[in-house]
Amino acid sequence: MATATEANALGYNLKVDYVIHYSFGDSDQAQAIAQLEKLLRTLANVGLQSEVRQGDEASLLVFVRASKRRLNRAVYRSRVRDWLYGIRNAEPEPASSIEPQNEAERLRVINHMITLPSEEGGAGITPNHGEWKNITGLLPLHDEETNKKWLHEWSQKTFLSEEDLDQIRDKFGESVGFYFSFLQCYFRFLIFPAVFGFSCWFLLGGYSIVYTLVNSLWGIVFVEYWKRKEVDLSCRWQTKGISAVRTNRREFKPEKEVRDEGTGEMRGVFPATKRMQRQLLQIPFALVSAIGLGVIIATCFAIEIFIAELYDGPLKSYLIFIPTILVSALVPTMSAVLMSIATKLNDYENHETNDAYDTALTRKVFVINFITSYLPILLTAFVYVPFASHIVPYLDIFRLTVRPFVSKEHATADCSSFKIDPHRLRNQVIYFTVTAQIVGFAMETIVPYIKQHALREYKEYNKKRNGKSDKDSPERSPIMAYDDPVEEKEFLKRIRNEVELPVYEVTDDLREMCIQFGYLALFSPTWPLVPLSFFINNWIELRSDFFKICKEFQRPTPLRCDTIGPWLDTLGFLSWVGSITSAALLYMFSGDSQTGPNGQPTDIKGWALLLVIFFSEHLYLIIRYAVQTAMNRLEPPNARKERGERYLMRKRYLESTLQAEANEEPAEKDPVSETPSELTRTALEEDARRNSGHSADPAERFWMRQRGWSESAKVGTGIILAQTSKGDNAKKQQ
Amino acid sequence: MATATEANALGYNLKVDYVIHYSFGDSDQAQAIAQLEKLLRTLANVGLQSEVRQGDEASLLVFVRASKRRLNRAVYRSRVRDWLYGIRNAEPEPASSIEPQNEAERLRVINHMITLPSEEGGAGITPNHGEWKNITGLLPLHDEETNKKWLHEWSQKTFLSEEDLDQIRDKFGESVGFYFSFLQCYFRFLIFPAVFGFSCWFLLGGYSIVYTLVNSLWGIVFVEYWKRKEVDLSCRWQTKGISAVRTNRREFKPEKEVRDEGTGEMRGVFPATKRMQRQLLQIPFALVSAIGLGVIIATCFAIEIFIAELYDGPLKSYLIFIPTILVSALVPTMSAVLMSIATKLNDYENHETNDAYDTALTRKVFVINFITSYLPILLTAFVYVPFASHIVPYLDIFRLTVRPFVSKEHATADCSSFKIDPHRLRNQVIYFTVTAQIVGFAMETIVPYIKQHALREYKEYNKKRNGKSDKDSPERSPIMAYDDPVEEKEFLKRIRNEVELPVYEVTDDLREMCIQFGYLALFSPTWPLVPLSFFINNWIELRSDFFKICKEFQRPTPLRCDTIGPWLDTLGFLSWVGSITSAALLYMFSGDSQTGPNGQPTDIKGWALLLVIFFSEHLYLIIRYAVQTAMNRLEPPNARKERGERYLMRKRYLESTLQAEANEEPAEKDPVSETPSELTRTALEEDARRNSGHSADPAERFWMRQRGWSESAKVGTGIILAQTSKGDNAKKQQ
Repeated sequence: MATATEANALGYNLKVDYVIHYSFGDSDQAQAIAQLEKLLRTLANVGLQSEVRQGDEASLLVFVRASKRRLNRAVYRSRVRDWLYGIRNAEPEPASSIEPQNEAERLRVINHMITLPSEEGGAGITPNHGEWKNITGLLPLHDEETNKKWLHEWSQKTFLSEEDLDQIRDKFGESVGFYFSFLQCYFRFLIFPAVFGFSCWFLLGGYSIVYTLVNSLWGIVFVEYWKRKEVDLSCRWQTKGISAVRTNRREFKPEKEVRDEGTGEMRGVFPATKRMQRQLLQIPFALVSAIGLGVIIATCFAIEIFIAELYDGPLKSYLIFIPTILVSALVPTMSAVLMSIATKLNDYENHETNDAYDTALTRKVFVINFITSYLPILLTAFVYVPFASHIVPYLDIFRLTVRPFVSKEHATADCSSFKIDPHRLRNQVIYFTVTAQIVGFAMETIVPYIKQHALREYKEYNKKRNGKSDKDSPERSPIMAYDDPVEEKEFLKRIRNEVELPVYEVTDDLREMCIQFGYLALFSPTWPLVPLSFFINNWIELRSDFFKICKEFQRPTPLRCDTIGPWLDTLGFLSWVGSITSAALLYMFSGDSQTGPNGQPTDIKGWALLLVIFFSEHLYLIIRYAVQTAMNRLEPPNARKERGERYLMRKRYLESTLQAEANEEPAEKDPVSETPSELTRTALEEDARRNSGHSADPAERFWMRQRGWSESAKVGTGIILAQTSKGDNAKKQQ
Repeated sequence: MATATEANALGYNLKVDYVIHYSFGDSDQAQAIAQLEKLLRTLANVGLQSEVRQGDEASLLVFVRASKRRLNRAVYRSRVRDWLYGIRNAEPEPASSIEPQNEAERLRVINHMITLPSEEGGAGITPNHGEWKNITGLLPLHDEETNKKWLHEWSQKTFLSEEDLDQIRDKFGESVGFYFSFLQCYFRFLIFPAVFGFSCWFLLGGYSIVYTLVNSLWGIVFVEYWKRKEVDLSCRWQTKGISAVRTNRREFKPEKEVRDEGTGEMRGVFPATKRMQRQLLQIPFALVSAIGLGVIIATCFAIEIFIAELYDGPLKSYLIFIPTILVSALVPTMSAVLMSIATKLNDYENHETNDAYDTALTRKVFVINFITSYLPILLTAFVYVPFASHIVPYLDIFRLTVRPFVSKEHATADCSSFKIDPHRLRNQVIYFTVTAQIVGFAMETIVPYIKQHALREYKEYNKKRNGKSDKDSPERSPIMAYDDPVEEKEFLKRIRNEVELPVYEVTDDLREMCIQFGYLALFSPTWPLVPLSFFINNWIELRSDFFKICKEFQRPTPLRCDTIGPWLDTLGFLSWVGSITSAALLYMFSGDSQTGPNGQPTDIKGWALLLVIFFSEHLYLIIRYAVQTAMNRLEPPNARKERGERYLMRKRYLESTLQAEANEEPAEKDPVSETPSELTRTALEEDARRNSGHSADPAERFWMRQRGWSESAKVGTGIILAQTSKGDNAKKQQ
């Protein structure tokens, strides 16, 4: 509390725009000093003012502030660029009268001033990379006052308003704004299935065909609505088409330099075909992931079934936890290994732009997440239930492990007496959609917060102890740690903490939401309360994610975007797969014993199951097509507004062109007011004869026959009169 | 022959740009004359010169030519518009130095001068519509000389070159250009399956799994390649994004007038939701089409089977033609009825733009075409073969019809002795892919040509007879029919013929090709020679279609487009359905009797069939996704060129902006060259104290501590020295 009010007393973050964290720990003195001087000179060169303070034992904090004039020029340059790429409609006003529109634009432009290469007008400072690898952080400062106010306000209302989302975007930039908008939109959409699911659960129980159909339709509408909403938001936030402005990856290694024929510039090229060959490695990667994780999950699953349903020996109540412990230990380890393989593969693919790199990585990460999240339930539904009676006898191998400890006869129940647990599937779905969500929330928000504070306490304690032991030493440096001016003490303490925080990645939060949507699409017919659980969960999620960004991460540098990117495809894919799994679940488990197989494997007919899947999937695709077509018709309001503006601009330009023409006009003789000379047949024929003599060009002779429109009209009138009278005569004769 | 050379002697079409066909037959004299005058005055107003000649008995020909200056201005206006809509990259040069780039642009712009409403700078003449409904035609004139030359050249080569296609586009506009490019691309792609299919047929026979897989893959690659090619062509022909410039439909009936908030203009609105409700009528329409055509086709099919395989009575060799005759008579009739319903439905949907109207109509037409083209084969493959033994007994009803004529016992073979004709499916596929193509060619190209000439002969003969009878009548008008100047005689005769020709619709030809592609995708595993047949057919098709456009239709008004439009979706759809039907055909008919059912209905297993379909379809979708992703990576050459141009333009602009800034620079004091005052610790502290007294703003105090980057550097150096020496001391102490 004290920190925030004091910061306020000191003024809003002391007008600091960015803090550069400069670590000199691992380089020698002279080099560190030279590098620091270079840094400060370069910053000054692009018009950034700096102040240096001590960081921790081996680092400095360089505070950066942009001069108003240079900032305005940078904003102007950035807007001109946007205009040239078609992101802005109107040409920006001149640099002198420009202001950053909001904090996000200000911070983004200053970030560009620091990081862009010098030929694009920046200082060319690349944190953690190349010659600037001593710079371990580049971050704006949290506005704690505002953050706290918002968090307080939001905890008292159900929905965030459009203005709240605009404010998030103004503070944290479009990419974070898009995440919160998505979360808010998803949350709002969940109301319907939450209510409907609750009613279905109450009235019809699980596996109701009505719920399944409605849920699938809801999924389609939600995904398509969000696509439309993305367009709307990108128009509202003026980022439509931002993906056209691609930023090149620094790590990209071109194979050769090629002179571009169109532009005449040298540029690094890496052949697309070669990259595609490398991307083929994704196939073995997916197989390895599936096998690696699949074996772990399936084995633990088998052990669990063995212990829960076959084993009957001593210590059963303790042994039952073994599979859970194994899964909790092995799956994250395996995932981490696979993740590092995925990152290596992605680096090896050598993408040219950051967008391409992120998209490719997201796709690989999704494979791992799909397996870890959904495989356990899929195994239960489509392997355990239909094939358990065939598989369970093979679990005898575990008996060999057990035999040393217990006598054979009463150790395990007989295989023949084994019966499938009918509630297993539902319990598992409940576990993943309720328990796991709560655990996830704790792991992601509460645990790091506690860890952080504990770590700070520990550091403080350590320093105090060191300080005590230092007191005895005579040669204590006069500029000892944290010898700050009194009025800056609290401020610098806060900054030192912020610098230590990790960097926020919006894609992790998006992934979490997409995986959650997957449970809804794939398995919710089993237990129609799933959407209700998610509805409640997401109210908290939205607030806790904001809290997380404010407290547990560095303030993110604003990034622009016009979509949630590859996760959108993921949503569509999950909704599609849902149409298959829902139908299969419905066929296998629905109904009473007389109407369907109700989970009894003997009653499941292969052809019927496949036919149900075939119809469900194609019905899904047809409805999706219809919804897409319908959605495309309805123009989002901001898109319409944007189109209106563009239209007006065009119209104004065209009108000015027409005006310019009209001004030229008087010089030209008006062809309409032209009075034709008296026209007689003989005169005409004479004309023709005269012309045929004059001009050898038959085309000119043709066009000279009738001069002016009124001559043509007279000739035409003549023909009409002749023809109609002829027609009348013919009639009369008849 | 004579006509063409004579036209050449007269100069290229006498420099006529457009001919307006003005019919005065059904309006009274005075009105017709007034209307004609208005027409000519309006034309003159927008800068179009006109000449009037007689048409047939009840019409005039108004020849139109644009004045050079007005045309150039119109071209300029059109290009500015394109530039504003982002179709052109560079702002066009001023009107005075502009020229139409090619004939298509010239004709398109003149057409706009005639037809655009006056507020957009046109004459507002709308043929066949509203007050201009007397104008029954508006057409440019064929360039017979060139047409003939091209036809001759192309008949001697296998492939058209890029330049040939560019020439087509220059003459007939982009939409015709796109059709021929598509046809050429399809033809070129057919080489591979033609060769491969022939080899498979020779070595493996029908229903080979290798052929099916390759054919499906080929289909995917072709469709995706064409998508890419479309982008390439639209960049080459500068029409990329042309669909953004939507032309409003004249027939659109707004429900209400609404003031647009953005633009402040009144505009007609028809609610999208209402249109969607109307579009729901498509569902009953599709059902009616399916039932209507399905019943006809199925009945004829049943009769055919009855006669061919059960009936054994007299006149069998004649009766066998009955079903064919019935199909030939009823299906086109039913199609025509359905077509008129489709058009009415489409009108009722009240689309706002021409594009939307055409797309919606195409979709409806496709439903009809799909049924008439593929249903017969689908019936044979998926109803006749597996279920014939169940259905055939019901064909007894036809026996009742036959009974009156023949004695019962030897009239029909016994149902029990009935055996499925194993070659029926293949024969049917051969019929549709060879015979029907030849018949189609004849019906579409040769028959109309003969009919046309016969009609002309007949008219000529009729006129002569009338002329003879007229000779007796005394009051023959002096300006009697075809009383043309001698040198224009041949020219006017040709024009009178051209005016009578129907209007060319490129969509009909595209439909034909898409339906053809469908046979390949859906059924070619049955008879792998299908692609070879199409390859040969399409060599002729390309030439005959060109011949058709030149001889049997009015010269089309050039239209711009950047895609073959809805037919592209159709191709993708057919290729998808092909993945289902091919797999099913393969499973049902492939292999020897020991490995598969080989068409024996008893051996077909429902679950296996469905499983094969499921895998085939999803394999198809995965491969399509991979091919799409790969294709997106490879940038088409013209798109790259276009991007390069755009990049250069942007770079030039940005550089000039930077330059302007650099020129402003000297006014500002260079922060780097600033020499700091001597810096000591005491001086600094004094500064701080002084500042804290001066300024109450803590932020200002913060930023005043270090003046200039070199002061910051010194402070930083101090901290680094202190920290590193402290570290060293600590080490020493240890």
